[in-house]
Amino acid sequence: MSNQELEVLGQDQECCPGLLTAPLDEDQAAELAKVFKALGDPVRLRLLSMIASRAGGEVCVCDLTPAFDVSQPTISHHLKLLKQAGLIDSERRGTWVYYRLLPQMTDRLAGILARPAGQPLPQIGQEPAGAPS
Amino acid sequence: MSNQELEVLGQDQECCPGLLTAPLDEDQAAELAKVFKALGDPVRLRLLSMIASRAGGEVCVCDLTPAFDVSQPTISHHLKLLKQAGLIDSERRGTWVYYRLLPQMTDRLAGILARPAGQPLPQIGQEPAGAPS
Repeated sequence: MSNQELEVLGQDQECCPGLLTAPLDEDQAAELAKVFKALGDPVRLRLLSMIASRAGGEVCVCDLTPAFDVSQPTISHHLKLLKQAGLIDSERRGTWVYYRLLPQMTDRLAGILARPAGQPLPQIGQEPAGAPS
Repeated sequence: MSNQELEVLGQDQECCPGLLTAPLDEDQAAELAKVFKALGDPVRLRLLSMIASRAGGEVCVCDLTPAFDVSQPTISHHLKLLKQAGLIDSERRGTWVYYRLLPQMTDRLAGILARPAGQPLPQIGQEPAGAPS
C-alpha cells in the first residue's frame, strides 16, 4: 500500500465515522480489507504484538525470528505484508533491519470498529415492520 | 467459532489489555486471526457495514443481495463466514433470514487495537542500545 493510499484511507476515516455507521463504498471496503487481511494470520498478529509491545518502540528482526518455528524468509515475508498494509515500518541499520509499529493505522482501525457514542445495542429478536411471521 | 471460543476470546481481552501491550501467545493469535480474516474481504466488509448501520438493527438478506454483483450463494457464503467469526448473528423468520451485528465482537476488536492510555508514540529513528551503526 502506497503512502498515497494510506492518506486516502485516513481521509475516509475522518470524513466517515466508521464501519458501523454507514455502508462502505467499494473503494473504502477494498482499502480496509487489505489491512484486515494482513491481520488475518496468527504469525503476523504475533509479530505485530511483539513489535508494538516492545519497550523502546522497535525490534530487531534478529529478536523476532527465534520466537517462531518458521524460517527467516517466511518471517520476512510476513513482515513485508504488515509493512505493505501500513501497520509497521522498517529501517535498516548496519547488519539488521528494525521494525516499529505505525500506531496511526491501528488507531484508525480501532476508530473504524468503535461504536458511535450513544449507539444502543441492537435488540435481540426485534421484529422489523412487515416481516413474514 | 463456537460460543465457548468466543467466551475465551472475551476473557483474554479482559485479562490482557490488547494487541499493542504484550506479545500474543499462539492460541490468542489463532483466535483473533480468524476474526480479522473474516474482515479481510471487501464484500464481507460491505455486508458488515450494511448490517451494522441499518436503522432498526437488522437487515433481511433480501435487502443485501441486490447491492452486489455476485450471486446469492456467494453472499450467503460470505455471511456464513462473518457469522462463524462471531461478528453477526442471524434469525430465520418465515421466508427470509435476518442478520444483525454482534457489537460485542467489534467492541472487543476496537479495544484490542486501541493504544493503552498514556502510551507515547514510538520515536522515529530512535537508536536502540547496542545497535550496529
